[in-house]
Amino acid sequence: MDFKLAGAFLAAALCLPVAARADEGMWTFDAFPAARVEQSLGVKIDQKWLDRVQAASVRLTSGCSASVVSPEGLVLTNQHCVIDCAQNLSTGSADYVKDSFLARTREEERACPGIQAEILLSIIDVSADVSKATSGLPGGDFIKARNAAYARLESETCSRDLQTRCQVISFYRGGQHKLYRYRKYSDVRLVFMPELTAGFFGGDPDNFNFPRYALDVGFLRLYEAGKPVRTPQHLTWKARAPVPGEATFVSGNPGSTDRQLTVAQLETQRDLVIPVSLLQRSEMRGRLIEFSRRDVESRRIATDPLFGVENGFKVNFGRQFALNTPSLMDAKRAEEADLRARVAADPALAARIRDPWSEIAAIQKVYADQYLRFRQLEAGSGGSSDLFNFAHILVRGARERGLPSAERLPEFADARLPLMEKQLLDASPVDPALEQLEMEFWLLKTREYLTADDPATKLLLGRDSPEALSEALVSGSKLGDPAVRKALWQGGLPAIEASTDPMIRYALKIDTEARAARKAWETQVSAPTEAAAARIAIARFAVYGDKVYPDATFSLRLSYGKVAGWTWRGTEVPATTKIAGLYERATGAEPFRVADRWLAARDRMKPDTVFNFVTTNDIIGGNSGSPVISAKGEILGAAFDGNIHSLGGDYGYDGTLNRTVVVSTAGATEALRHVYGAEALVQELGVR
Amino acid sequence: MDFKLAGAFLAAALCLPVAARADEGMWTFDAFPAARVEQSLGVKIDQKWLDRVQAASVRLTSGCSASVVSPEGLVLTNQHCVIDCAQNLSTGSADYVKDSFLARTREEERACPGIQAEILLSIIDVSADVSKATSGLPGGDFIKARNAAYARLESETCSRDLQTRCQVISFYRGGQHKLYRYRKYSDVRLVFMPELTAGFFGGDPDNFNFPRYALDVGFLRLYEAGKPVRTPQHLTWKARAPVPGEATFVSGNPGSTDRQLTVAQLETQRDLVIPVSLLQRSEMRGRLIEFSRRDVESRRIATDPLFGVENGFKVNFGRQFALNTPSLMDAKRAEEADLRARVAADPALAARIRDPWSEIAAIQKVYADQYLRFRQLEAGSGGSSDLFNFAHILVRGARERGLPSAERLPEFADARLPLMEKQLLDASPVDPALEQLEMEFWLLKTREYLTADDPATKLLLGRDSPEALSEALVSGSKLGDPAVRKALWQGGLPAIEASTDPMIRYALKIDTEARAARKAWETQVSAPTEAAAARIAIARFAVYGDKVYPDATFSLRLSYGKVAGWTWRGTEVPATTKIAGLYERATGAEPFRVADRWLAARDRMKPDTVFNFVTTNDIIGGNSGSPVISAKGEILGAAFDGNIHSLGGDYGYDGTLNRTVVVSTAGATEALRHVYGAEALVQELGVR
Repeated sequence: MDFKLAGAFLAAALCLPVAARADEGMWTFDAFPAARVEQSLGVKIDQKWLDRVQAASVRLTSGCSASVVSPEGLVLTNQHCVIDCAQNLSTGSADYVKDSFLARTREEERACPGIQAEILLSIIDVSADVSKATSGLPGGDFIKARNAAYARLESETCSRDLQTRCQVISFYRGGQHKLYRYRKYSDVRLVFMPELTAGFFGGDPDNFNFPRYALDVGFLRLYEAGKPVRTPQHLTWKARAPVPGEATFVSGNPGSTDRQLTVAQLETQRDLVIPVSLLQRSEMRGRLIEFSRRDVESRRIATDPLFGVENGFKVNFGRQFALNTPSLMDAKRAEEADLRARVAADPALAARIRDPWSEIAAIQKVYADQYLRFRQLEAGSGGSSDLFNFAHILVRGARERGLPSAERLPEFADARLPLMEKQLLDASPVDPALEQLEMEFWLLKTREYLTADDPATKLLLGRDSPEALSEALVSGSKLGDPAVRKALWQGGLPAIEASTDPMIRYALKIDTEARAARKAWETQVSAPTEAAAARIAIARFAVYGDKVYPDATFSLRLSYGKVAGWTWRGTEVPATTKIAGLYERATGAEPFRVADRWLAARDRMKPDTVFNFVTTNDIIGGNSGSPVISAKGEILGAAFDGNIHSLGGDYGYDGTLNRTVVVSTAGATEALRHVYGAEALVQELGVR
Repeated sequence: MDFKLAGAFLAAALCLPVAARADEGMWTFDAFPAARVEQSLGVKIDQKWLDRVQAASVRLTSGCSASVVSPEGLVLTNQHCVIDCAQNLSTGSADYVKDSFLARTREEERACPGIQAEILLSIIDVSADVSKATSGLPGGDFIKARNAAYARLESETCSRDLQTRCQVISFYRGGQHKLYRYRKYSDVRLVFMPELTAGFFGGDPDNFNFPRYALDVGFLRLYEAGKPVRTPQHLTWKARAPVPGEATFVSGNPGSTDRQLTVAQLETQRDLVIPVSLLQRSEMRGRLIEFSRRDVESRRIATDPLFGVENGFKVNFGRQFALNTPSLMDAKRAEEADLRARVAADPALAARIRDPWSEIAAIQKVYADQYLRFRQLEAGSGGSSDLFNFAHILVRGARERGLPSAERLPEFADARLPLMEKQLLDASPVDPALEQLEMEFWLLKTREYLTADDPATKLLLGRDSPEALSEALVSGSKLGDPAVRKALWQGGLPAIEASTDPMIRYALKIDTEARAARKAWETQVSAPTEAAAARIAIARFAVYGDKVYPDATFSLRLSYGKVAGWTWRGTEVPATTKIAGLYERATGAEPFRVADRWLAARDRMKPDTVFNFVTTNDIIGGNSGSPVISAKGEILGAAFDGNIHSLGGDYGYDGTLNRTVVVSTAGATEALRHVYGAEALVQELGVR
């Protein structure tokens, strides 16, 4: 095989047509192109099918997708979507990440801190309401009015109902606004997760590669009032091999794409945003690898953060090199020129649209000027320190909750508070050494980017070093205790102002500067960008009609495709791998080591069972855990990755190369049965 | 001050004129533009001045510049140029990097392992010889013939003379070849180095920034036959403040610039070479920072490697953002278009030059395809592991030395062997933990770039993990012992083949694959690039005459300029800092801490003594330690850094922004006298 990363630097042209091609698109459920699918794949998708799939599709607030697969609230997702939960439930003496987790009875199922599951109930177009509220407003006023409209719409629809969550989501970069109403489940429990060496077999070297041999599945269960939720509208688990060429549908929540950015915006991503993100992740990767060598416990603690950093690194690495591929930018330039020419050819349209492309290009200078300040002081303040994040939410929340909902920063609007409270107050372990590392790294990078002489650096550090300050803040803080957080949250501003917790004092000290960075960013960058992008969206609708789908927004989407391998530089990559291949690839050395229980189970497993497979479905990060569904509505697997070529999928889709990587229900069933002896689970899945 | 890194992302256009502007250029001593200097600065530089400066200018084989400053072989350079020596001389109980080093008598001066000092004696143009030998040869034959010609020319001139070294250097990317003959001094001893907190005050945050307050000086002494070398032709140390606007000359060895690359080559640097180098350095930086936390000894050991990684990171970061500055690439495109148009307008010239630009553009695809393989398997094999490097040289050397000099890989030609032997056989400490980290990192990155499925990865790792393999190779190797290396070097191929040292066995195992990567690279990338670039050089001479200087090649150059601050976004940065400013900037926390002896000396120092200053001289890495000389030939300081804007100097020079950062003789004298009590040294410098 020769599908190496080095080759991807020269990847063949990504095709970026104006309208979506066969198999392209992350379609909303209220605008699914059934006719096009029938034409392309020869299968009919009707409203009943769509309703059933929607009712079984789950969004996890941890940033993943999932599906209901039994009548008793059993939910299928990826191992890598529940590893954070397993890590939170682990201790030095019970390491579920290393050893796997299997609840043999309902009583053994354990609640995942901070995770909420959501199932989409309805979609309401509120574009007119939002437009009316924001029309003609400049900069900061625009943002304020839009936030207020969102808060009002969300509260009006959902606030008195504790079982639902309403969220207004912006589509087409401000071109549409829709209210998504979800049934929410805040008691989500871990049922099964394999050990890391099985779920992430091949580790970082195999991540985003194929052939693959990973049991990247995890099972959760929805609970309410202490009991499993009844879920009659579940998908049917079908432990069969996928048929090459058969139609597949992926229903999930792609997190974010940048396919509708202008060329000027893409250049900013390429030259500034992605490079900085790659460099921070690289350095943190080095930190975490060495950190994990300190001792066994450090290794355990660093496992999940390291996975996140390495995964994010690879994603951004792929994006960077996609943007460095001349053919991609050439196609983007051609696409933009085409739309601009068509707008110019229609005087009425041109008068309405004006020149949002030039407006956005001009904003990029301000973007570059303010980006690092905004990133370090506000968007990414505290790095990934939980303690800082707690303090930040407590301080901000205390101040914001004193205002009417519509006047608050949007994340503190009434409709958003329940989830925020859950995430803030659920108990989960906090490791001081890791916390200190995160805080220190954030302070070091802030000083590096803004320089030691910047007033903000001086405010952040005073005469301290990042090392000493982070140590003092972490070791002195009591915010790791959920009871302490609860008291401060409930005590509001007086409690915050009276607190002597050093992390609270620190968050208070820097709050004004951080808010100023945010305000400058919103007024001078986000607001004018959004106003211009909304006009580009109008132009697209006017010129191309409904052939366009919106960029991903971590909301429910359906993509269509088929089971198919691909060809790279003359080498054919087959569509499926078999269980036998796992044993052939295993070297005994990490990350190509399989657990003893897998070695012991070898003779019991059918070696030619399909383990992983690839499809042409158009997905992206956030789709992890999505069900891969046949035209009959059977579930054939869980999407868990893309191939190396899919990394450029942030900007466009190339059906000849981009592939979704799936763990098959057939392979998973075989492993559940013969490796884990999870017969009850297999029975619940309806396997006979 | 607002000269922050964020701002540099949007740095004003770098001016890239076809011919050099005022203060631009790293000129060879045989083509110094004295008339232009007189016109620009109003000072006359005659041949006597040039001869005297050349005779006192020193190249250190460790990659730095220096100058002779007393009649008894005393040499001035930077602290950061001798820190590796001090680290090699240090032990757990005597840490000179942390505590400083001062030899109070000649007997206390200590030899620096592996360092040779070289003073240029003469320059001979051998372009005709080389052209004759290589004319019309394709790919691999071209490289072979050129190497043979170099080896022959070097041996003919120098081989029987143990006191000289001859080196043929290629200028204008193959447009000229000149033989540089050096007087060499292989016994170089450490005389003085301040503690790290003084030499590198401000650490990484202040690196490449200004105002600065660093005593970045180090003194060495040249020895021969156990005695200090008599050096009557030394520069005169002048402990006076530089006068704003006064002419300054920097004589030193700029390492490498890319000002004559084509646009296609710059794009490869921007999109592939620099990003990979940044990412590797970032991750290694994180590794080393955490590594240094293990214990006091690990911190000591990691200090110098960490400095190197952070410095290299910042240099490449500046380059990356310069290449991302649209105005720079626009200027490069305009420059290239101008030259191509002028060539096209002259049919005779056009017939001779053909189209080297398109040839080089076509090579870039091969470059991108082979770069990571060549980098990992050959150019950067073993990472920075000393043990692997020893094994590599021993294995290659044993094989190559069996061939006639002219047929060997050029680094093993007879004229190159004495320095290679010195570097291989001088005793210096090897730290197993650091070695293991370097080897492991190299193996991990090789697998990451080539993928686990590549045959080369399989050869490198077999069924081992990078972690286990690197541990086994390092812990089992005896190559840290210079006597073992000497026996293997002298024993030649039979000794190598009989060796059971695991690192030797490993270097033997991978040598064929590594040589193949090199051969492919040289045949398909370097040779055709050089052949095309030589024709571009011919075109430049034909069109622009002698107004062009060659790209830097770590050979002696002279740059001219003046003492001057600069203005950035409306803020004036003054040209000098004073000793008082050091005390004001010191916070007590690393890296803004000063040693107790500095605090104690505060009252004895004249607070308004100039400490550091900036000039417009055009320099780059390799110039570190260069003397900064007045028009009268007095030495006013040692260049040790550039400002943040100078980081784009790899591609072009902008006299309005680019600055050389200098530690002044006045400030150094004050510190030597009052902080270190180094009165004998001050006397030797001729200060009264």
